Amino acid sequence: MQRIVVLAGGIGGARFLRGLKVAAPEAEITVVGNTGDDIHLFGLKVCPDLDTVMYTLGGGINEEQGWGRTGETFAVKEELGAYGVGPQWFGLGDRDFATHIVRTQMISAGYPLSDVTQALCSRWEPGVRLLPMTDDRVETHVLVDDPEGEGRKAVHFQEYWVRMRAGADAHAVVPVGAESAKPAPGVLDAVAHADVVLFPPSNPVVSVGTILAVPGIREAIAEAGVPVVGLSPIVGGAPVRGMADKVLAAVGVETTAAAVARHYGSGMLDGWLVDTADASAVDEVEEAGIRCRAVPLMMTDDEATAAMAREALALAEEVSA
Amino acid sequence: MQRIVVLAGGIGGARFLRGLKVAAPEAEITVVGNTGDDIHLFGLKVCPDLDTVMYTLGGGINEEQGWGRTGETFAVKEELGAYGVGPQWFGLGDRDFATHIVRTQMISAGYPLSDVTQALCSRWEPGVRLLPMTDDRVETHVLVDDPEGEGRKAVHFQEYWVRMRAGADAHAVVPVGAESAKPAPGVLDAVAHADVVLFPPSNPVVSVGTILAVPGIREAIAEAGVPVVGLSPIVGGAPVRGMADKVLAAVGVETTAAAVARHYGSGMLDGWLVDTADASAVDEVEEAGIRCRAVPLMMTDDEATAAMAREALALAEEVSA
Repeated sequence: MQRIVVLAGGIGGARFLRGLKVAAPEAEITVVGNTGDDIHLFGLKVCPDLDTVMYTLGGGINEEQGWGRTGETFAVKEELGAYGVGPQWFGLGDRDFATHIVRTQMISAGYPLSDVTQALCSRWEPGVRLLPMTDDRVETHVLVDDPEGEGRKAVHFQEYWVRMRAGADAHAVVPVGAESAKPAPGVLDAVAHADVVLFPPSNPVVSVGTILAVPGIREAIAEAGVPVVGLSPIVGGAPVRGMADKVLAAVGVETTAAAVARHYGSGMLDGWLVDTADASAVDEVEEAGIRCRAVPLMMTDDEATAAMAREALALAEEVSA
Repeated sequence: MQRIVVLAGGIGGARFLRGLKVAAPEAEITVVGNTGDDIHLFGLKVCPDLDTVMYTLGGGINEEQGWGRTGETFAVKEELGAYGVGPQWFGLGDRDFATHIVRTQMISAGYPLSDVTQALCSRWEPGVRLLPMTDDRVETHVLVDDPEGEGRKAVHFQEYWVRMRAGADAHAVVPVGAESAKPAPGVLDAVAHADVVLFPPSNPVVSVGTILAVPGIREAIAEAGVPVVGLSPIVGGAPVRGMADKVLAAVGVETTAAAVARHYGSGMLDGWLVDTADASAVDEVEEAGIRCRAVPLMMTDDEATAAMAREALALAEEVSA
């Protein structure tokens, strides 16, 4: 049985995983989820990326928007607003609130996030093993120009992403707490026993990059000696979804499929898939020591996504041959 | 300006207060609310009696059931059930959840319940000053026959009342924590400066009785030297609503209007209103040293309730003359 480890962010990672399950129905898939975008709201612990993976694979996701629950209502949020309690810019629905209430209650009772995630998944049955990258608190902050002052200030990633819609220039992205975080139980073991490691078309800075910032994970992947293959989230010089260009700029990386591959580097990546629109980038990536193929990378439906996953697995096979 | 202090439980107290506001629109009304029925559910602090008063006077109550919010939905509760997280027997709606989320967040931040209640009331504008009886934790427990064993066990009041529907015989009612609780800021001062103290037709054991169990409150009322007038929650030998007979039995008090008056005692009560159906009880109550009148005591609408409040204030006037 093939063992696949995937480092996943939110929407892009979750949709890729749905295709991967179609492409490799017999595989044992372990997902190491980004928790750098976790946020405490209204006294509740919210894990947007973990929940997006869980809801997407468990059939509870709002398909149109890609995050949050289907059939969602917003009575709690409306009431919180009536009490004058913010923030209102984060779209927590009633069904979603229940997840955060259960999670917060378990964490208050002393359970680590990895156990909590497993408990939540026992309902959703995502068909993968979903692990947070760490049980420790890591919060990605973004250094931006202060819109109300002359200086710069650090804001929580969600405030930058959701409230400001990445509208201010980002000067740095800092996964606060990462340097002292430990990989969650099971993460290093899954990597050590993996047959292949995949980087889905998730945000290379604030999703995959944050996971790799947890000491031990990057090293474990390098030491596993198995193919590591990524899929470009940049197509035709722009992010397929989201605002990855903003945070790439903050870390000095061009918004091109080739630049992202070089950012990961040949010490990490063995193979890289770019979209057919970026076929001209293949040579540049290969010159950087990373095997590269140009294939369609638009996740228009599960079958198209499954085809991408098959290409990634085929490239992994190829680089390990 | 007349200063009125009311010791209130949930539905009965809240409805009486609505009538009292009509009867005495110029009065300064301070409500000392029962918190013995408070319960932690899903990691959130729920104050059913305080909320019933707040919602009822603030126009947010579900009129038919007498508790909870109007226009309520139950998405959060349904989801918690889907996670297998209980209890499901307590009817928390989505709008209601927002109140508990705000309260819990403020308490976690270090605010006492009295400050939190004031903050919540700044939205609801109940037109009275609503104080919890105490900022300390008091939880009423009921000693019942263990339905699954041969012995007895103590259950939280809400479990007894809502889950078991007072179906098991109650042997004792214990306000756990009351003996070391302190009256909330403002309570003793309001009593000391009151012109009259009213006991609405709330449950004499688990509502008014619990408030009086907080050391200092009973003494302050006795020392205030102002008329104390109560309204019988028992009409024709049965509670007007709820299951007060069950908890009266637990403390050895008959379910009659006269027995409840004697239970409070002439050391506490100066006047007592019974329903016209219990006119024959007037002599018995007066023989116990408590001035008594028989008037209609059914809170069918605000005007009928206002008439009751006027009778209570008139009786207070009478006993102080």
